[in-house]
Amino acid sequence: MTHGAPRPKRESRLVVLGGEPARAPGTVWLVGAGPGDPDLLTIKALRALQAADVVVHDGLVTDQILDLARPGARLISVAKRKSRHSYAQDEIDRMLVAFAREGLTVVRLKGGDPFVFGRGGEEALALSAAGVPFEVVPGITSAIAAPAYAGIPVTHRNVSAQLAIVTGHERPGKETSEIDWDVLARFRGTLVFLMGVGRLGDIAGALIENGKDPATPAAVVQSGTLPAQRTVSGPLSEIAAIAQQAGIRAPAVTVVGQVAGLRAGVAWAESRPLHGRTIA
Amino acid sequence: MTHGAPRPKRESRLVVLGGEPARAPGTVWLVGAGPGDPDLLTIKALRALQAADVVVHDGLVTDQILDLARPGARLISVAKRKSRHSYAQDEIDRMLVAFAREGLTVVRLKGGDPFVFGRGGEEALALSAAGVPFEVVPGITSAIAAPAYAGIPVTHRNVSAQLAIVTGHERPGKETSEIDWDVLARFRGTLVFLMGVGRLGDIAGALIENGKDPATPAAVVQSGTLPAQRTVSGPLSEIAAIAQQAGIRAPAVTVVGQVAGLRAGVAWAESRPLHGRTIA
Repeated sequence: MTHGAPRPKRESRLVVLGGEPARAPGTVWLVGAGPGDPDLLTIKALRALQAADVVVHDGLVTDQILDLARPGARLISVAKRKSRHSYAQDEIDRMLVAFAREGLTVVRLKGGDPFVFGRGGEEALALSAAGVPFEVVPGITSAIAAPAYAGIPVTHRNVSAQLAIVTGHERPGKETSEIDWDVLARFRGTLVFLMGVGRLGDIAGALIENGKDPATPAAVVQSGTLPAQRTVSGPLSEIAAIAQQAGIRAPAVTVVGQVAGLRAGVAWAESRPLHGRTIA
Repeated sequence: MTHGAPRPKRESRLVVLGGEPARAPGTVWLVGAGPGDPDLLTIKALRALQAADVVVHDGLVTDQILDLARPGARLISVAKRKSRHSYAQDEIDRMLVAFAREGLTVVRLKGGDPFVFGRGGEEALALSAAGVPFEVVPGITSAIAAPAYAGIPVTHRNVSAQLAIVTGHERPGKETSEIDWDVLARFRGTLVFLMGVGRLGDIAGALIENGKDPATPAAVVQSGTLPAQRTVSGPLSEIAAIAQQAGIRAPAVTVVGQVAGLRAGVAWAESRPLHGRTIA
């Protein structure tokens, strides 16, 4: 079966086929690809990829993971790019519905988990409204796995009994903010900011302004779980400068809290002999 | 190779072996088994299980997942039981170190993720201090996956841009509490309480006393991602009574926040034809 060529519209096919029942819509799988390490893919995600006719994927999904898709599956990138048209969310929603109505098995593949800042909820609602069957395949979120690979447990007995995962994309000071910085500053557990490494100075500043101890340990993990993983750490008041000086770039996850100070004890992944090498 | 029989102590073996170098310690894999659905195991976790000489596991890990261990691997339950001796954490730590020093490949298998209330950090520090090599294999946390399987996205654009995961084991009012209930009450994102279904009345009461709107949508998901999954929902002020009336028992995850109100739109798993049936 090939899906590269344009297909006639469902209506005209129905006419041609006469009495045959309308083709049942395909299923859309909303799949989390995990944080990057292809071995952190779930068995369910692997099965969905191997059954897929079409894979609609984000920019954070690596080629190594896309290579696991069924040979012949059509791969469509909806990554945000400055240089060309970016797909709006409603275009992606319509694309998923249209492919499913062709009877295709569709995998919507996202970095991390589809329901942790992945807009999977919006896609689920759109599919539900269109009567398209769908399944959700949770993925390992980099909010937990990137710190883990940097030797930072996001919770730890007598150190942190709670964890907040916050988008780093929101600019502190934005009038319609959904984030109360004074509440986060008083949150006694671990704070993890997903992405937003470019706003790190603003984020640290907003926390400190609202009373967070400037000496709170912090760490930034770039490309968590991948061979290129790099981590920098330091007190909250200096973490933005340290990250900038080290040239830390997206994708990155920032951890703020006492657990970031446990790093020395459990930095297992970055101390392995092959860490940072590209394995041929 | 069998590991069922008691082995001579390392010291005596060294004497017997004479000039041969001491056996290198085996690796300990701190592995998250995910929320229950065996297909939500990661590829890395499956590989570790298939290489294991010994699997030291919690009570939350199902037989279906334990069956994936290498045939002949020794399975040791360290589940907490009221009826018999429960292993203290330092006993488990010593057990992991001792097995590794025998040269065995050890999998420490936990429900969910080893670093999300899994005490994996303590084990990592103990192994590190003992000079035993270890690897961390993150798992899908039920804090995110159980709501997902109940149709609840823990984040949703314009609804929740932040997520707090909190242990439900801590009794509100405890003097040495690590949880500030007034901060949680003001947290505008999604709150997820892991376990602690027996304390649900106390938790809801503490949130409402501290100013959380009693009408905030809430849901409790029992046995999330398993065929026996059950979900109840209602306003925060009534959720404890609703859960009790429905006979909801551990293991369960509680979600508090506007996203719990999206449930009707995306309750995909529980509306599948085979949901709740035991498949032979």
